Amino acid sequence: MNIKSRLSELRKQMNEKNIYAYIVPSSDNHESEYVGDYFKSRQFISGFTGSAGTVIVTQEEAGLWTDGRYFIQAEKELEGSGIKLFKMGEEGVPTTDEYLYNAIPQDKILGFDGRVVCAKEGINLADKLAKKNINIVYEYDLIENIWDNRPALSDNKAFLLDVRYVGETFSSKLARLRKKMEEKNVTNHVITTLEDIAWLFNIRGRDVKFNPVVLSYALITLDKVYLFVDKNKLNDEILGELDKENVEIKPYNDIYEFIKTLNNDEKILLDSTKINYAIYNNIPSEVKKVDEFNPTMFFKAEKNEVELKNIRNSHIKDGVAFTKFMYWLKQNIGKIEITEMSAAKKLEDLRREQEGFIEPSFSTIAGYKEHAAMMHYSATEETDYKLQPQHLFLIDSGGQYFDGTTDITRTIALGKLSDELKIHFTAVLRGMINLSMAKFLHGVRGYNLDILARRPMWNMGIDYKCGTGHGVGFVGAIHEAPNGFRWRIIPERFDSAVLEEGMLTTNEPGIYIEGSHGIRIENELIVRKAEKNEYGQFMEFEVVTFAPIDLDAIDINEMNKEEKAYLNYYHKLVYDKVSPFLNDEERQWLKEYTKEV
Amino acid sequence: MNIKSRLSELRKQMNEKNIYAYIVPSSDNHESEYVGDYFKSRQFISGFTGSAGTVIVTQEEAGLWTDGRYFIQAEKELEGSGIKLFKMGEEGVPTTDEYLYNAIPQDKILGFDGRVVCAKEGINLADKLAKKNINIVYEYDLIENIWDNRPALSDNKAFLLDVRYVGETFSSKLARLRKKMEEKNVTNHVITTLEDIAWLFNIRGRDVKFNPVVLSYALITLDKVYLFVDKNKLNDEILGELDKENVEIKPYNDIYEFIKTLNNDEKILLDSTKINYAIYNNIPSEVKKVDEFNPTMFFKAEKNEVELKNIRNSHIKDGVAFTKFMYWLKQNIGKIEITEMSAAKKLEDLRREQEGFIEPSFSTIAGYKEHAAMMHYSATEETDYKLQPQHLFLIDSGGQYFDGTTDITRTIALGKLSDELKIHFTAVLRGMINLSMAKFLHGVRGYNLDILARRPMWNMGIDYKCGTGHGVGFVGAIHEAPNGFRWRIIPERFDSAVLEEGMLTTNEPGIYIEGSHGIRIENELIVRKAEKNEYGQFMEFEVVTFAPIDLDAIDINEMNKEEKAYLNYYHKLVYDKVSPFLNDEERQWLKEYTKEV
Repeated sequence: MNIKSRLSELRKQMNEKNIYAYIVPSSDNHESEYVGDYFKSRQFISGFTGSAGTVIVTQEEAGLWTDGRYFIQAEKELEGSGIKLFKMGEEGVPTTDEYLYNAIPQDKILGFDGRVVCAKEGINLADKLAKKNINIVYEYDLIENIWDNRPALSDNKAFLLDVRYVGETFSSKLARLRKKMEEKNVTNHVITTLEDIAWLFNIRGRDVKFNPVVLSYALITLDKVYLFVDKNKLNDEILGELDKENVEIKPYNDIYEFIKTLNNDEKILLDSTKINYAIYNNIPSEVKKVDEFNPTMFFKAEKNEVELKNIRNSHIKDGVAFTKFMYWLKQNIGKIEITEMSAAKKLEDLRREQEGFIEPSFSTIAGYKEHAAMMHYSATEETDYKLQPQHLFLIDSGGQYFDGTTDITRTIALGKLSDELKIHFTAVLRGMINLSMAKFLHGVRGYNLDILARRPMWNMGIDYKCGTGHGVGFVGAIHEAPNGFRWRIIPERFDSAVLEEGMLTTNEPGIYIEGSHGIRIENELIVRKAEKNEYGQFMEFEVVTFAPIDLDAIDINEMNKEEKAYLNYYHKLVYDKVSPFLNDEERQWLKEYTKEV
Repeated sequence: MNIKSRLSELRKQMNEKNIYAYIVPSSDNHESEYVGDYFKSRQFISGFTGSAGTVIVTQEEAGLWTDGRYFIQAEKELEGSGIKLFKMGEEGVPTTDEYLYNAIPQDKILGFDGRVVCAKEGINLADKLAKKNINIVYEYDLIENIWDNRPALSDNKAFLLDVRYVGETFSSKLARLRKKMEEKNVTNHVITTLEDIAWLFNIRGRDVKFNPVVLSYALITLDKVYLFVDKNKLNDEILGELDKENVEIKPYNDIYEFIKTLNNDEKILLDSTKINYAIYNNIPSEVKKVDEFNPTMFFKAEKNEVELKNIRNSHIKDGVAFTKFMYWLKQNIGKIEITEMSAAKKLEDLRREQEGFIEPSFSTIAGYKEHAAMMHYSATEETDYKLQPQHLFLIDSGGQYFDGTTDITRTIALGKLSDELKIHFTAVLRGMINLSMAKFLHGVRGYNLDILARRPMWNMGIDYKCGTGHGVGFVGAIHEAPNGFRWRIIPERFDSAVLEEGMLTTNEPGIYIEGSHGIRIENELIVRKAEKNEYGQFMEFEVVTFAPIDLDAIDINEMNKEEKAYLNYYHKLVYDKVSPFLNDEERQWLKEYTKEV
């Protein structure tokens, strides 16, 4: 069935339900960053394979909204489908909300599957459309009926992450959460974010690529816990743990009916930016809603000492894999055929050799020359460059291990570099170093420190159009709120929280010159307490990424003495952590590539 | 009449009006930072002469609330008065609001002069007290009736600040303001902040010490302007200008009755954190209030090119005065008797020799040795130290000129310094320099940049417990919103606005070691546009303070090459700007004290 037939089938379904316009977004039921194949309805209905996009189908036309990363790809993939491309952010292009408001006639009906639309967005849209008396029907997944051979929901087994990895039992976490609920004077709390559930219950799974989580919902009361999950996924070990707190297991989709049965005198804590529109609307309207961030978002961001010990260990393994990769690349460039994709594959293979490796923590970005200027470049068979013994190669990758989640970028000189490349590389390095060296009073947030990383670039009149760093989960999401480094406050990202001890954040400034080159150097930093004195509690960073920064790419004259001292300190650390796990040739090479400057 | 008699007189007055408790704050009718003698009711009723404090008198007791700067002074001054000292911020000490809520019995009445209480604070207090059915009476100034020989309201003459100083006519500013009013869909706008009125009408006066403003209120409608001011203060030049826009002059205090006559269908723009409680409450309750910052606050912060030219000129004069002072001090220390107070007097005399000098822009802080560790130290006959040819002397001072307002701090070595003093001095200097050198994208706010100044101190585990800098008015307030440098956002200060071209801000990091020494180095910076390119509009600072930074106090080994380069650049600038106005000996000296390091 081609796209046109699919659209026509969908319109038939819409007609039956008296729906004038229907939205098909990219999300799953949990506002996840990555989604399982079952949830790729938008790809099914449009043929567009990018990670972000929204399709709107009306009885008159069909459109796809996507952002600048995907304009070219979308144009190509939509060819012949009859679906119009709406380039988000370009002048004169309406937002989806504006489009819907204008396109739907007075008194007609808008439909979407309420499980894949965020509550907050749905509420805002409903408010807007109410002015034209347009009602919303959110009960139907109309794609379900026309998608033959739809992939099943993942039935991968879940596993318990033992307390020797996570450092705190489910019971202890639950007690902390209930204390917060009492402080906030609520009797119920609904959690739908898979990372929060994974953290709270100490469970992990394989239901979402790159993200070791289990498809589930949780409803916590002051004396009961309901976990909505396919019970077949849970092993005895998990069931034993859950039993300690009398957790009642219910089928995954049962939450939608169950939540309707809340008593009118209950008060429920929820985060309308995280739960979906169907859950939100199924809560009886008399139930008082306390709309705030999930307390688990803050709890899980502050890694405990056991998690930190494991994080350090996983990063040593990751550093060993990366060092071996860098050695292999430097030895073989110009001698054997290496491409962006084969290099990425090589690095993944080396990670797989490490103990406790689960899977990559995100899709590797491996860009040679001007490909590296695209911040989220993903090589395909068609774009795959052969690496030559010249210029720069950027590789941004990471792993999920049983004892931690890693994210590292290095940019590697494959031959002799021009002065410009060296100067740019050194500026990025200086930014990375200056942020790493920061010492600050408790209370400081990422927006206070971002300038330290960005300054060398801004001094040259160059900017990287993204934050400097993001929070990282523990055997969890590669992008985790509420910590980050970003000079502008973007409320919907919520990455400007106070930097608390145990938070883990990437530090990844860069320079991206379109059509020419891209440079990024990324380490992860743990927030640690430094001295406390009459001025307050000072904080500092502990670096946990251990891989050499390519000395061949540095113009040492550009660095001041504090920066050189840090680089030498860092390289000694890398050698000490990584060298015990290398063979003689690799160790010899690492000695040279971590030498003092 | 002693304090006890005054309190007893006040209680009589309170009894007559059936008032159980009465508040006497430090403010004038305009929420000014400095107040005229007429407004010093709190000092009259308590004997406490500090700049900040609130007295509450009930039928049972009397209390003074003040902050840590004044604990010792207040204890002494309150002795024998029967007034209890409440040390604000100390554990277990109630706030004034908490105290009032507890101290006043159900159904009783609280009184204060509604003109000297900020609307927002009054509203919050009224809300709180409503729970105990305590009503507020704000119509009476009970101090008026018991204060014999109360100083009269200032009757100093106002003057027009010509367009060659201010660069924009009253008519043009009024048109801009009305445009904003139309955008906000309001028909009226009440302005009570004296600096905003001074800016809008291009008038200045001498009604408040340190602050060249005219006691007045303004009410702007879309086609009329009412200025409430003692007409005797206005000369023909001012009247001529006001006439162009048909400004109606009304007596100063008439606003309180006039504002009651607004029509119910009007909409009024006001800032409840700036106007007083009496004005706010006298607005008919049917009139729609739009509670936002005064647009003039933003307008006046962005100095125009004419103002900037004048600011530069006033700073050259100020720099000449300061350089002469520093030369005199370095030449005479250990030879003639110089004290903190006589040094401050000498500097003021040198400023008075400069063309267009009006008055100091604030009370000079001149602290020797450990006195300098007190950030707001003000020498008195009793504390006045003799300066010796050793250790450090901090002097923070400024002038009001017809062409600008200045604020400069230098810390000067009076003899050979210990290594610790030099290292501390150099850290402060490095912070000051690093902020001065900042280049940044438009959109950046003070909290993004504060770390640049604070970093050398934080790296040593030291902090200065204040912002790094504040906005400065143009022939106006020495502390001006909405720009500043401060890492923590403090909403009520509103000094975190985007740094826009033409904003003028101080840059004054410091180190304050109690009982030992204090160091502060302060320059003023103008925000200027740098290049605009594909990354956006870059901004940078232009320094406008021109006086040598004492080379005798620097440990040059602590500075990196960028910092040294900036210091050399800065000192060359100082020499070029200041030397033409010095005599031969002074010029010779300046050459030496601005030499390259």
